[in-house]
Amino acid sequence: MATRTLRIAMDGVTGRLGTHQHLIRSMLAIRNEGGLALKNGDRLVPEPVLLGRNAEKLAALAAAHGGLAWSADTAATLADKTIDIYFDVAATGGRLERALRAIAAGKHIYLEKPIANSSQEAMQIVRAAEKAGVKAAAVQDKVYLPGFHKLRTVRDSGFFGRILSARLESGWWVFDGELHPAQRSSWNYRKKDGGGLVLDMYPHWRYLLTGLIGPIKAVSCRKVTQIPRRIDEAGAPYDVDVEDEVFATFEFESGAMAQVTTSWATRVKRDDMIQIQIDGTLGSAVAGGHKCFVQSLAATPKPSWDANAPQAMNFDEQWQEVPDIEPFKNSYRWGWEQYLRHVAEGAPLRSPMLEGAKDVQLTELCYQSDRERRWVDVPKL
Amino acid sequence: MATRTLRIAMDGVTGRLGTHQHLIRSMLAIRNEGGLALKNGDRLVPEPVLLGRNAEKLAALAAAHGGLAWSADTAATLADKTIDIYFDVAATGGRLERALRAIAAGKHIYLEKPIANSSQEAMQIVRAAEKAGVKAAAVQDKVYLPGFHKLRTVRDSGFFGRILSARLESGWWVFDGELHPAQRSSWNYRKKDGGGLVLDMYPHWRYLLTGLIGPIKAVSCRKVTQIPRRIDEAGAPYDVDVEDEVFATFEFESGAMAQVTTSWATRVKRDDMIQIQIDGTLGSAVAGGHKCFVQSLAATPKPSWDANAPQAMNFDEQWQEVPDIEPFKNSYRWGWEQYLRHVAEGAPLRSPMLEGAKDVQLTELCYQSDRERRWVDVPKL
Amino acid sequence: MATRTLRIAMDGVTGRLGTHQHLIRSMLAIRNEGGLALKNGDRLVPEPVLLGRNAEKLAALAAAHGGLAWSADTAATLADKTIDIYFDVAATGGRLERALRAIAAGKHIYLEKPIANSSQEAMQIVRAAEKAGVKAAAVQDKVYLPGFHKLRTVRDSGFFGRILSARLESGWWVFDGELHPAQRSSWNYRKKDGGGLVLDMYPHWRYLLTGLIGPIKAVSCRKVTQIPRRIDEAGAPYDVDVEDEVFATFEFESGAMAQVTTSWATRVKRDDMIQIQIDGTLGSAVAGGHKCFVQSLAATPKPSWDANAPQAMNFDEQWQEVPDIEPFKNSYRWGWEQYLRHVAEGAPLRSPMLEGAKDVQLTELCYQSDRERRWVDVPKL
Amino acid sequence: MATRTLRIAMDGVTGRLGTHQHLIRSMLAIRNEGGLALKNGDRLVPEPVLLGRNAEKLAALAAAHGGLAWSADTAATLADKTIDIYFDVAATGGRLERALRAIAAGKHIYLEKPIANSSQEAMQIVRAAEKAGVKAAAVQDKVYLPGFHKLRTVRDSGFFGRILSARLESGWWVFDGELHPAQRSSWNYRKKDGGGLVLDMYPHWRYLLTGLIGPIKAVSCRKVTQIPRRIDEAGAPYDVDVEDEVFATFEFESGAMAQVTTSWATRVKRDDMIQIQIDGTLGSAVAGGHKCFVQSLAATPKPSWDANAPQAMNFDEQWQEVPDIEPFKNSYRWGWEQYLRHVAEGAPLRSPMLEGAKDVQLTELCYQSDRERRWVDVPKL
Repeated sequence: MATRTLRIAMDGVTGRLGTHQHLIRSMLAIRNEGGLALKNGDRLVPEPVLLGRNAEKLAALAAAHGGLAWSADTAATLADKTIDIYFDVAATGGRLERALRAIAAGKHIYLEKPIANSSQEAMQIVRAAEKAGVKAAAVQDKVYLPGFHKLRTVRDSGFFGRILSARLESGWWVFDGELHPAQRSSWNYRKKDGGGLVLDMYPHWRYLLTGLIGPIKAVSCRKVTQIPRRIDEAGAPYDVDVEDEVFATFEFESGAMAQVTTSWATRVKRDDMIQIQIDGTLGSAVAGGHKCFVQSLAATPKPSWDANAPQAMNFDEQWQEVPDIEPFKNSYRWGWEQYLRHVAEGAPLRSPMLEGAKDVQLTELCYQSDRERRWVDVPKL
Repeated sequence: MATRTLRIAMDGVTGRLGTHQHLIRSMLAIRNEGGLALKNGDRLVPEPVLLGRNAEKLAALAAAHGGLAWSADTAATLADKTIDIYFDVAATGGRLERALRAIAAGKHIYLEKPIANSSQEAMQIVRAAEKAGVKAAAVQDKVYLPGFHKLRTVRDSGFFGRILSARLESGWWVFDGELHPAQRSSWNYRKKDGGGLVLDMYPHWRYLLTGLIGPIKAVSCRKVTQIPRRIDEAGAPYDVDVEDEVFATFEFESGAMAQVTTSWATRVKRDDMIQIQIDGTLGSAVAGGHKCFVQSLAATPKPSWDANAPQAMNFDEQWQEVPDIEPFKNSYRWGWEQYLRHVAEGAPLRSPMLEGAKDVQLTELCYQSDRERRWVDVPKL
Repeated sequence: MATRTLRIAMDGVTGRLGTHQHLIRSMLAIRNEGGLALKNGDRLVPEPVLLGRNAEKLAALAAAHGGLAWSADTAATLADKTIDIYFDVAATGGRLERALRAIAAGKHIYLEKPIANSSQEAMQIVRAAEKAGVKAAAVQDKVYLPGFHKLRTVRDSGFFGRILSARLESGWWVFDGELHPAQRSSWNYRKKDGGGLVLDMYPHWRYLLTGLIGPIKAVSCRKVTQIPRRIDEAGAPYDVDVEDEVFATFEFESGAMAQVTTSWATRVKRDDMIQIQIDGTLGSAVAGGHKCFVQSLAATPKPSWDANAPQAMNFDEQWQEVPDIEPFKNSYRWGWEQYLRHVAEGAPLRSPMLEGAKDVQLTELCYQSDRERRWVDVPKL
Repeated sequence: MATRTLRIAMDGVTGRLGTHQHLIRSMLAIRNEGGLALKNGDRLVPEPVLLGRNAEKLAALAAAHGGLAWSADTAATLADKTIDIYFDVAATGGRLERALRAIAAGKHIYLEKPIANSSQEAMQIVRAAEKAGVKAAAVQDKVYLPGFHKLRTVRDSGFFGRILSARLESGWWVFDGELHPAQRSSWNYRKKDGGGLVLDMYPHWRYLLTGLIGPIKAVSCRKVTQIPRRIDEAGAPYDVDVEDEVFATFEFESGAMAQVTTSWATRVKRDDMIQIQIDGTLGSAVAGGHKCFVQSLAATPKPSWDANAPQAMNFDEQWQEVPDIEPFKNSYRWGWEQYLRHVAEGAPLRSPMLEGAKDVQLTELCYQSDRERRWVDVPKL
């Protein structure tokens, strides 16, 4: 039983997402369990190299986890032939340049979402990686959340029959900073800082839904700014110039439809903050991030509407929870394991870079639809 | 205390809706309680005259309720000077002609929905009634369902602050007739018989929502036929040529938005078959036909999203039920009482005939938006 | 709308089964609702003529239900041209002769189970009816029990995928008369009186299972007498010479298997006294007489066996109850309605007389398998 | 108080079953508690010597538990006069030879199930041990599971009166590897690897049931392959050539009957994955691996079957749980303690080697019955 190492430069790892999900719960968790078992029986052990601009922060993070390798010199790191993979979880601005530079240095690349600021830029990365022959993938973590993973398994079991439609309902009340401090950073509400709900969430919704229903054919989207003035982290009021509520409808090539609503100005009366319902001829399912409930055609009730008496059925109780079959695994780690196996032994990839480009494209089409007040078709990338 | 009588010709009363809701639970219920108390202390007693084409059915219905007056001769009935009001709950086809004839005979008119086949025809009725000086109203029963009535009361209390958006979710699984007999008549699925989900339900959704949020400015609508083949009442398969699922978005003049989804091909995991959520700056409410729940800004939670653990909050339990303050009254009867007081003593009217015309107009705009794949503005009527 | 009458001679109707299920809950219930609606819009009204040997009992029963027609003269009744149908719920002994006589008189026939004492006799009836051109059916009431009807609907919905196996578990503790009076009549325990568990119950199990899984190919059966001595209705002890517990296995033409166990010497720890489980590739169901529960492949758990700790899963809670879609109807009445429509308008028949003959044949094969201690194939009838 | 040591060569102990149940939870647990108290007041301390072929694994396991003795040289170990007992938990193939060699070396022997590949081979071991005068026993762990132990205690208390019949129902849904990875190793589904449900489970069922009801007189068995194609651990599809569902009936010398069903293609709606019901004249019991429930004749209900209403009784609630009187002890450890006392002080043995031979014989008879489609008698061994 041989051990094989992959060295991964993790750019931007000192940020919250980079540290907690990608470094601790993915990279280090895999290392703590002795790496991944490959098909040929070898063990694959990833070795992180922390990369960034702030040497002090990098050194502290490296020390806190038993003395990891780190560098504040990107050029040198890319020139280091022992580095196999460049992973980027730094700010979206500049990602294109960083990705192209890593590709030029012959590194495999793995990029956080959104992989670029436009589909055109995203395709530059896709093509550069193809040309250079490096293995390129985008982070698509939400498919690996237990609830959505179960939803996909329900689909794979043939439970739905023909899928008719989906409802994705996401969001909650984000305080404006007056009564309580806001629970989302103020940059989310400013265009110049890369804010905006479509940009933030609709890439996720695209890959979640296409993974269940197939390619999207056309998009209709309407965005609004419900709370135009907010208080920032410093207690200062500021104007919101991006949307905080979005109403979208997707048409799929299969003929199925999805209604995809996200709001930071709504109050939640459902099972989870993000919830997807799939209706099919043979059954329906409703999934949140961790739980999934099903109702088959055979168990579908025939409720009646009575103007003179309250509803006699408890609809919630008519759904059956899908049990936890597989042990829980962090969703970012799932993505890493898949990508690492892809690099190490050519295992199939669920989120090649082209998928990341399509995620970016979808946000562009949403903005276009809103601007032109009409449905727009999804062009081939 | 004087008693005043209004005689009402009820055209089409032998149908299910006419008999159960309009005759028994409205007209006869009011009579059984000795009529309505008017402002001046008088009692207003409505006196139904059953009208229709089938003398046998009319005679049987009249006899079953203690010997009511009835007639199968419309012309004679309209010529009868003792008749004050013409009410039409017969088939939609021919409603325009019947209404105009009644107006010409000097009767006040009260019409079931839709009041006409097009907004142009509907406006003919509105104008003819205005010109003739008769009192004209449309049936808009759903506003008087206890849950939606409470929702309106919540709004009137100022609970919402500025209303931001509404979600109307309606529908359930209508069996296709294979496994179980369908619970909706087959005519609902055939265009030539006046079928179609938009035509059936969107008039209701318009008056419910404008009653809460004000006039609609623009409409986007997408309709689909999810189940293209069904089994009819005689066991024969037939093709569906109308929509059975509709995704609409309304923009209001106030700037608020509403997402209005109706489906006969979905499975229900919410509190009621028809449900409206209103989100406002100061609070939100969720109402079904009989119950209404609220959550104020002060009681709004700050849930957190955790990729590594199931949602810890039970969101359903964070809403408070609005108590039943007023005794239950049938929703059709509510409408009748208001219209009768309007005729008898000029009381204000919530659903003048123009409202009925706007309900028809909205369905036209929905179909147009779907056809042209774009938002359409609502023209002034 | 015309009314059509069918006159039915009900032989043996004064017995418990005849009076309660066939007369009151079937025949009279249909009459009370104005008969059955036929496809052409006519109403079919059945008219019972009570037939038997005891004039006093017949007269009393006829009087108790508003003066029904009755006769103690079978020959005259069969000669009466106004009688359309001969129904036999009298003792099994003599059923062959009675049935043949009715066929000879040109009556349609409907027979309680078992239709004859041997498959050879049963086929005599089948062939005589065919030759005479009369409409002939056997009572098969249990398929119409709500739970088993739902189970069949679950199957029709495609829920099971390929059906792998069935478990039918039936029975309960029948007191031997010592501690408490026995709850089954003593004739059930005596061969000469037509007793025996196979004869009593296995006709039901055959039609229930073939209705779900298709034809039976081979049978293995083992019967035992667990309680050899009992106390009869008069308090006298007697010897039991028939089986009171049966272990059978059926092999179906589809390849599916069923284990069919019935016992009057067992104690019940399951949901219902009669219970059928169906396991299929895509899902399983467990049904009793009134309720049915399902578990789809998607909701199938992965329990683990732990020698060191009690089972952590509550398996019962992992099943979802199938809702009541159709209003309850007595199971004998279902059968009558189907047979009456068959006679009146040629509607399809679920239990033609040949089915009743197969039920008898199955009991013969069970006894043969037990005798010869081996599997026996089911010959074509 | 003297201490007495028994040295035990544990062959194949590095396997999962050997390490966890036999070494850690049995041998080491006994040692940790200072050994077993013998009748004469001495302490008996077992001393494991880890035996196997892979020196690396043996050394690691020995080290992990405080430096146990180990050897990869079987011949030397058997020649070592300090070794008292040879225990075999290695692969079934070769067990006969290993056992005979140990007997020849004068060791007492304790063998995992199945003790040999045929009853003939098994009897070779039995006779060799008898002839050599060594103490020989087979592992029969399931009788010591708390639930089945309680069931035996219930029997010993005379609770059942005359035992009439038993139902053993075992199994659950084993995923085929498509939707979820299978939870049983693929070798279980291949004949050449020693797979097959009868071979795996029916030895257990024999000793469990004969321990409760006495010797088996005749056997009827039917096996089927329900899921013919599965996915193995490496993701490759393979054909199943052994049974995954078995329907057996046992007749006991006492006249009692048992129905013994096991399936890897069923879904569980009962209290435990393995469940035994015993019905007796005076009472019944239902036991799983950890819990046992009883219903005495005095508490037996008289339910009634109603075609017109759901079952009014909750049968589950009519059973009383047998309390845990004795502290929990691992079932393998129970077996070891009994065997060690037998070797040390001649204590009675519940599973002498002949019992292990009968377990093997029973599987042969099951396969024969299935092949010949008939009941087969159990010959005397």
